[in-house]
Amino acid sequence: MAAYEILLPLALILCLTKLFALGAHRIGFPAVIGMLLAGLLIGFLKYIPSESFRRIFFGEQIREWLSVFAKIGVVLIMFSTGLGTNLKTLKASGGASVVITLFGVIVPMALGTLVSYLFGAGEGLLSHLFYGAILTATSVSVTVATLKELGKLETKVGTSIVAAAVIDDVIGIVVLSVLTGFTPTASGESVSFLPDWWENAKWWLVIIKIVCFFVLAVALGLFLRKRFSKIENKYPHNRRVPILAICVCYAYAYVAEKIFGVADITGAYVAGLILGGTLRETPYVEVKTDVLGYMVFSPIFFATIGMNLDFSGFSGAFAGFGLCYVLVAVAGKLIGCGAAAKLCGFSTKDSYRVGCGMMVRAEVVLICTDKGISSGLVSPAVYPFVFMIIIVTSVLAPLLLKFSYKGELPLRQSGVASAPADQDAHKN
Amino acid sequence: MAAYEILLPLALILCLTKLFALGAHRIGFPAVIGMLLAGLLIGFLKYIPSESFRRIFFGEQIREWLSVFAKIGVVLIMFSTGLGTNLKTLKASGGASVVITLFGVIVPMALGTLVSYLFGAGEGLLSHLFYGAILTATSVSVTVATLKELGKLETKVGTSIVAAAVIDDVIGIVVLSVLTGFTPTASGESVSFLPDWWENAKWWLVIIKIVCFFVLAVALGLFLRKRFSKIENKYPHNRRVPILAICVCYAYAYVAEKIFGVADITGAYVAGLILGGTLRETPYVEVKTDVLGYMVFSPIFFATIGMNLDFSGFSGAFAGFGLCYVLVAVAGKLIGCGAAAKLCGFSTKDSYRVGCGMMVRAEVVLICTDKGISSGLVSPAVYPFVFMIIIVTSVLAPLLLKFSYKGELPLRQSGVASAPADQDAHKN
Repeated sequence: MAAYEILLPLALILCLTKLFALGAHRIGFPAVIGMLLAGLLIGFLKYIPSESFRRIFFGEQIREWLSVFAKIGVVLIMFSTGLGTNLKTLKASGGASVVITLFGVIVPMALGTLVSYLFGAGEGLLSHLFYGAILTATSVSVTVATLKELGKLETKVGTSIVAAAVIDDVIGIVVLSVLTGFTPTASGESVSFLPDWWENAKWWLVIIKIVCFFVLAVALGLFLRKRFSKIENKYPHNRRVPILAICVCYAYAYVAEKIFGVADITGAYVAGLILGGTLRETPYVEVKTDVLGYMVFSPIFFATIGMNLDFSGFSGAFAGFGLCYVLVAVAGKLIGCGAAAKLCGFSTKDSYRVGCGMMVRAEVVLICTDKGISSGLVSPAVYPFVFMIIIVTSVLAPLLLKFSYKGELPLRQSGVASAPADQDAHKN
Repeated sequence: MAAYEILLPLALILCLTKLFALGAHRIGFPAVIGMLLAGLLIGFLKYIPSESFRRIFFGEQIREWLSVFAKIGVVLIMFSTGLGTNLKTLKASGGASVVITLFGVIVPMALGTLVSYLFGAGEGLLSHLFYGAILTATSVSVTVATLKELGKLETKVGTSIVAAAVIDDVIGIVVLSVLTGFTPTASGESVSFLPDWWENAKWWLVIIKIVCFFVLAVALGLFLRKRFSKIENKYPHNRRVPILAICVCYAYAYVAEKIFGVADITGAYVAGLILGGTLRETPYVEVKTDVLGYMVFSPIFFATIGMNLDFSGFSGAFAGFGLCYVLVAVAGKLIGCGAAAKLCGFSTKDSYRVGCGMMVRAEVVLICTDKGISSGLVSPAVYPFVFMIIIVTSVLAPLLLKFSYKGELPLRQSGVASAPADQDAHKN
């Protein structure tokens, strides 16, 4: 198949995902949902009888090429998430958000694992745990937008939600890394230059590998930060900075997955944390990364999920599991975070609001599911329900929040609050 | 091979190409040369004994994936060239630059074809002609930078060179399209949904196909322009504009190659012409396209050329041909454009300057060579000499120009003149 034949699928995917993302945004959904639907729609082209036509979008090579683009898309998303994570905010927010996150991670994970165990969705403890881990990933963009609209982003509720979301990401990544660390690496036909005792490590070696990764990643990271701050001071707003940053991201992702058996997305996220936060050129790098993301790679990630959605391995029993899974996804955060907030002395109403705000899931939950499926721990049949989780939570949370704030006067909106709004405006 | 394994080659290629491009720029070479050298260097990894290590960068799939990235890189380069082409400048420059270009295309093409014929480098008329066509593509960025530095960009010489370069691109593309139109499409394993009589068309049908392409492309283009100016007025500086533009570019490239047998790069260039020039958001689209280009795709194109450089089919006879080829590449433009300028009433010195200014080749010559090789008309063994052409011309032209202007006072530099300089500054 000639290389140029990737161009038509690319054009179609980019165009449709953009249109659907705009549509979703217009009716108040996150853009992710639109892109997933676009993918689903393209997926239906599979059922067109003409073989030669089908192969234009679903030829074996085209699929493989798209999967490579999708992988880069995921890596870029996690990198830019890392870049956007400001560890400073944690200190400011104080202990409350730590407690909120912990409960918000433990409760849904426990419930998810339990449900998977009861319905026998997963096979083996690791698999059950992964079903649980998927439910831990919060994406607060929708919540932030809602609170901002209500003029409540500056409140105790707002700030602790934002802070909690940050820690949530970090903890989620650690959990994911540990789980993937314990899964034997699949695809045997992949390049292997590592000794066998390292590749298929004993449990204790796995832990050592994971620890090693984080220690080395941070150690090297501190050095890289120094180099970067030198370079960025010497060449402000210069191409070489984002290019080198992206190289670091790719290298981290590769090494994490290949050498330490930690997820590649973990590597990318850690690279983001390292080059993010206080570096002067971080916003510049973030912008360039996002351009790469939305101009080609991330839409392909979301679209391919929709395109490859298959209902094989889907059964009545699984449907039962799926619905409970969606239920605990919502309840887990609501109860977990709500209770934690209450413990930290929030009023009942505010605790409830925190619970609502933390329930929203978006891209990260998809990325984790994707990881679980590729490592063989999670059934592809769970995708429809993960979709459901995203849709339900991102519809429910804004409604509940708006309702709970009904009749209260909004605070005046500050510059901080307006930042995410500008982003949104720019996103369309 | 797992998708994430593309990340390490990507990181290495992006990092090295950037470093070498900066190095090349520092010693006054175009960045392209640096990127090619980086590719050459990476190519030497092939000779490392360890098979598993070799496969990290040269595994069959990795090569295939990189070739897809390279293809997108070429398409983006041609698209952005099209976007940058302002057909308005032609009217302004008047007839002189048209004559200069015509001679500047005909003479090198004739000489190149002749040399190929004499040395038997090509097989068959089409092949000889392609060797000639490769020599037509001028890239004046180096010349513009030099003239700007000398403060001579605003002179009659400067403006006619810039204008001539524009027409040069257009004519070059037409020649290329005709030649590729006549070459039977290679790779049989590629998707085919077209009737055989259309795929392997008679010569007259080929001409009809080419004409059809340009007619339809322009007709649809006028419609698209209208739509775009509507969208961009409604949503200034909005992501949807560059995304849709890129989709148009990809679709044009695909349709050109697949349906009309015209080169995909022609499609991309035409798409660029259509969405370029006077549209208000063109600069915005251009910026986004360039980010995509330099952040991932174009470096991979240039690097892979260096990486895949093979000296098989290289012989004493071919070396003889190669050197003459380089010679006529330089002489062809110098004589052709020089004579034309003289005919148009330029002073002998100015005619000589025009000749020097027009001789420089860069990315486009590589893209044409690449096309020739992939369509089987040109031997891969010509690459080293195409490198030589780029290096020689981009060293010679600035020297000769500076020397010819020695002792003359520079004009005051205007805003127009400073534009390319800013670009350069930004490029590093």
